[in-house]
Amino acid sequence: MNKIEHLGIAVKDIAASNELFTKLLGVAPYKEEEVASEGVKTSFFEMGESKIELLEATKKDSPIAKFLEKKGEGIHHIAFAVADIQSEIERLKGEGFVVLNETPKRGADNKWVAFLHPKNTNGVLIELCQDIDS
Amino acid sequence: MNKIEHLGIAVKDIAASNELFTKLLGVAPYKEEEVASEGVKTSFFEMGESKIELLEATKKDSPIAKFLEKKGEGIHHIAFAVADIQSEIERLKGEGFVVLNETPKRGADNKWVAFLHPKNTNGVLIELCQDIDS
Repeated sequence: MNKIEHLGIAVKDIAASNELFTKLLGVAPYKEEEVASEGVKTSFFEMGESKIELLEATKKDSPIAKFLEKKGEGIHHIAFAVADIQSEIERLKGEGFVVLNETPKRGADNKWVAFLHPKNTNGVLIELCQDIDS
Repeated sequence: MNKIEHLGIAVKDIAASNELFTKLLGVAPYKEEEVASEGVKTSFFEMGESKIELLEATKKDSPIAKFLEKKGEGIHHIAFAVADIQSEIERLKGEGFVVLNETPKRGADNKWVAFLHPKNTNGVLIELCQDIDS
């Protein structure tokens, strides 16, 4: 793990939250992107070497819709940047973590991503991500 | 706001979680510190320019004990580094945020800290922090 790549925050209304986080952080989102396969609209704010990602559900049965229903708005996941996602998946499996995507999938912001099951990580949903071009 | 200074994660058993996060992150905590006034034991892991802070309650009525009781283990807050906490507090009040500590208080890791009320920040508890020496 090299750094916090981003923090994902589940929100009900991404347009209103974009305004709110622009005031809070003092910068506007540099990108907005819909990931249809995950049923989300996202926006990204730069914050030092990391990013803040806002996530709004676009489908009722999407993971973000379920999270909002169960827990309400708030931090949804932490993503760590890794240089080689496949070797990091193998290393973490060897340490006893449960990897939800043994084959990385394509995520927002041009990344290969894989999630760890939060039951083994103190309730924190953890994402690994690797730049697709790297 | 300059960067994510740290992410705070509420845990039930900091000794067990220190082991878990050492495996996850590939680094051991560089510091453990008790903040008696807040009723917490903390440990810190370096992750790029940010840190991961684990928090275990030491008193039944501490904020972390209440969080664990209500929500269980998981991400408790995001802390952003600021150069001048007092002027950032004034700026955010002007933007309509509710600042819980208009006078910054002394937090872990040699910082002046102030929190924003999560009701105005999509359910996310946000901390501002400034190095005490800066």
